[in-house]
Amino acid sequence: MNDAPAPRRTRGGGGAARRAARSAVSFDTARFIERKIPNYEMLPEEALEIVEANAETVLEEIGVNFVNNPKALALWKEAGADVQGERVHIPRGLARQLCATAPARFTQLARNPERNVEIGGKSLVLAPVYGPPFVRDLDGGRRYATMEDFRTFVKLGYMSKWLHHSGGTVCEPTDVPVNKRHLDMIHAHMTLSDKPFMGSVTEPSRAQDSVDMCKILFGDEIATSQPVMTSLININSPLTFDDTMMGALEVYAANMQATIISPFIVGGAMAPVSVVGTLTQVLAEVLAGVAYSQLIRPGAPVIFGAFVTSIDMNSGAPTFGTPEASQILYGAGQLARRMNLPFRSGGALCGSKLPDAQAAYETSNTLNAALMGGVNFMLHACGWLEGGLVSSFEKFVMDADQLGVLHRIAQGVSWDEEGQAMDAIREVGPGGHYLGCAHTQRHFQTAFWRSEVLDNKPFETWMDEGARDTQALAAAKVRKMLETYQQPQMDPAVSEALAAFVARRKSEMPDAFS
Amino acid sequence: MNDAPAPRRTRGGGGAARRAARSAVSFDTARFIERKIPNYEMLPEEALEIVEANAETVLEEIGVNFVNNPKALALWKEAGADVQGERVHIPRGLARQLCATAPARFTQLARNPERNVEIGGKSLVLAPVYGPPFVRDLDGGRRYATMEDFRTFVKLGYMSKWLHHSGGTVCEPTDVPVNKRHLDMIHAHMTLSDKPFMGSVTEPSRAQDSVDMCKILFGDEIATSQPVMTSLININSPLTFDDTMMGALEVYAANMQATIISPFIVGGAMAPVSVVGTLTQVLAEVLAGVAYSQLIRPGAPVIFGAFVTSIDMNSGAPTFGTPEASQILYGAGQLARRMNLPFRSGGALCGSKLPDAQAAYETSNTLNAALMGGVNFMLHACGWLEGGLVSSFEKFVMDADQLGVLHRIAQGVSWDEEGQAMDAIREVGPGGHYLGCAHTQRHFQTAFWRSEVLDNKPFETWMDEGARDTQALAAAKVRKMLETYQQPQMDPAVSEALAAFVARRKSEMPDAFS
Repeated sequence: MNDAPAPRRTRGGGGAARRAARSAVSFDTARFIERKIPNYEMLPEEALEIVEANAETVLEEIGVNFVNNPKALALWKEAGADVQGERVHIPRGLARQLCATAPARFTQLARNPERNVEIGGKSLVLAPVYGPPFVRDLDGGRRYATMEDFRTFVKLGYMSKWLHHSGGTVCEPTDVPVNKRHLDMIHAHMTLSDKPFMGSVTEPSRAQDSVDMCKILFGDEIATSQPVMTSLININSPLTFDDTMMGALEVYAANMQATIISPFIVGGAMAPVSVVGTLTQVLAEVLAGVAYSQLIRPGAPVIFGAFVTSIDMNSGAPTFGTPEASQILYGAGQLARRMNLPFRSGGALCGSKLPDAQAAYETSNTLNAALMGGVNFMLHACGWLEGGLVSSFEKFVMDADQLGVLHRIAQGVSWDEEGQAMDAIREVGPGGHYLGCAHTQRHFQTAFWRSEVLDNKPFETWMDEGARDTQALAAAKVRKMLETYQQPQMDPAVSEALAAFVARRKSEMPDAFS
Repeated sequence: MNDAPAPRRTRGGGGAARRAARSAVSFDTARFIERKIPNYEMLPEEALEIVEANAETVLEEIGVNFVNNPKALALWKEAGADVQGERVHIPRGLARQLCATAPARFTQLARNPERNVEIGGKSLVLAPVYGPPFVRDLDGGRRYATMEDFRTFVKLGYMSKWLHHSGGTVCEPTDVPVNKRHLDMIHAHMTLSDKPFMGSVTEPSRAQDSVDMCKILFGDEIATSQPVMTSLININSPLTFDDTMMGALEVYAANMQATIISPFIVGGAMAPVSVVGTLTQVLAEVLAGVAYSQLIRPGAPVIFGAFVTSIDMNSGAPTFGTPEASQILYGAGQLARRMNLPFRSGGALCGSKLPDAQAAYETSNTLNAALMGGVNFMLHACGWLEGGLVSSFEKFVMDADQLGVLHRIAQGVSWDEEGQAMDAIREVGPGGHYLGCAHTQRHFQTAFWRSEVLDNKPFETWMDEGARDTQALAAAKVRKMLETYQQPQMDPAVSEALAAFVARRKSEMPDAFS
């Protein structure tokens, strides 16, 4: 039952690598989740059919904008759409038909094959927070993120056993020029971790740099024919596909690299205030985006994305962990399954400024919905704070610990003879206790999931140890992890080639900071 | 869509009551939840059938102990059980057959008929924390609970709009003699709130006092024929029914008062370490307990209870919000539905010493499972801290706020024309925004659930207001609620009769403190 074996030592490589490896610790990571429990189907068939019919109406009658993108307009026209200016009206059924060539499930390769992940079906792959310009920790408070912070998050992600994926922009390294930071970020993921990662999407040329670096790491053949990156393509809701994101999508799809086609919606601002209205828009946008990916290259792996939250209608602030966000997640999951596409949603989303109770309520509401709602790829699974403005070091390890809960629930329960435990019930009998019985002795080490952050000690012990709250417990855990971090091995030739690529590309461009 | 109208002023009564009522505020309470969403069926039919078969084996082969209770042994013998000493062996099928007379759903009356609750089917009734000997707040820290604390919790419960039930021992008033405190507790629930409540179970005579006080409040006829209390009968797991709890059950069942028949299990100590083994024992215990209630009085309302948590096998400490606890909750809900009985489980359970992130993670994990798992009566829905040793004032209002999330999710979604919002999508179109559109204007006040505790303001505003964490926000909310509390009206004759009963019963007994 133990799906997280203890760290083990590995040996390998030659020369200097062998000497380095002698003391290297490989931090074990749980395999991606393969649910053995049913998905929760919240919306009835009737509602889903209405959403699907309405989404087709939206695409045909209202249409979508492909901005500043003559290539896209030409492809759509050729496929049979009615293109008027930048507006693309897609005849009923066309988008869904084009989506049919996208795979239901695909494997993203990691440089360590044990860390490959499968995305789709009943899998759940967990990736960390993405995008915040600030970081926060207990000692330093809230401040602009740097490349050093970025590297620290990659190290923490590498050492987090319930995290399957290294992610992408775990924070924005604001001390590196905006046109060069993608090189440092990809380089950090490739060298400080051996888990799968995401590519840059902020310019088509940066997507190409990401592919080129993957050619060095994985070889030309693999990096242009099998997914070695899963990258985040946001749609400018409502119904708008900008040339930057579409340009990145074009690069990735052409190289058979995976993308998440994801409406980014604050409900009430970028979509209607109703759940079904929002689902209609989400589906229309995903249909158009996924269809476009298949126009670029049929069979390119894509994920049905839905980043949806609600708004505080009094202040205009986005809110997280709300009931409407959960309802939309459940409904979007059902729509994705009806399209036979992998589904991305959820995360450790919260609006709180601190890793406190608010942060945890909101996070758990979303994590539980994501598990039950059939999410296959969960970005922001740990570390997200303050509505995505802040990456929190403490919350990263707090959330990452909670991801263990999802693993265990997803395993389902065993009802074989050991699971039935009739021998234990017979042995103990009325009024007895189970701690010492044979069945308990056989299973006690793996019977229950165990937090590595939270405190379940008696009150007096907890007082003696400083009466620490969760944030303080997590800060200690962060320190301990970073003290024991060891970089995974890499072929020195590859390492040198990557460094040379980054140096060359940086030298080819003047610094830009906006 | 707004199921929580704003507080409204009420008028009524005569003389002094009318003068008092002139400024009285009636704090509105949401109706109990009636789920419009499916239950989550985690375990497959095959596993449930095995559990049911094994539970019958347990009852027949191992049997259960009814301790120090000749009446129970006689009733069981008469019903066809094989009684040997205090051990009752129940032939296969007998317990389940006896359970068939228990109602699938019943109404518990409140003195304010608007606050009546229905328990069973797809309902969910929320009641506060039960049992802790300590209280904690931000100012005073952790300390023994007093009757004054008890009254404060009853007031907070009365004013909490998502809480349907006033509960029972919201904390143990340790400053009142142990043989008299039930009188003060029942009196507080009856007079400081108008929501339904629970009776005493610590002695059969105290159950009788509870019934006698209900005769004063509801009249003799109602208090002995319709549920006006739902009381908590814990089973001494494994498989033991003690005379104190059974004595209380006998009093309540004889008076048609509702009880929760609830195994109290720390898995690994009082039940096997496996989920299915624990479910087997839970089912056997509930079958025996519910059957016994029907031997006392066929048709007596009972609830299938399951308070189950897991244990930290290293320290022996109970743990909460764990994956195994959720799995057991889901499975027990399925077993209860197959018996056509109302189901009790869940709550704001946590092991944390503080109302911090740990408390909230663990609480939300359980609240979400309880909603999806079909719980009908949720004790400990707010205020529980430190494994049930502490009732926390701040966590009470924090959790009670989160109960609003459950209400909204349970409502399901609307897919009528307003829900579809096609007019909004047409009006706004690609690249627009929804804040000003007609559909948004029609619905923005009720479209999204809104927390009354958590902070979603911009960072700068939050800093200006003192950078408060959730506990501090909740402490302010507690103060504000208590400042505006007003006692619900009561017929002065009833009020006097209740006070006289309490005084008389206290005078009849010497003080006892253990």
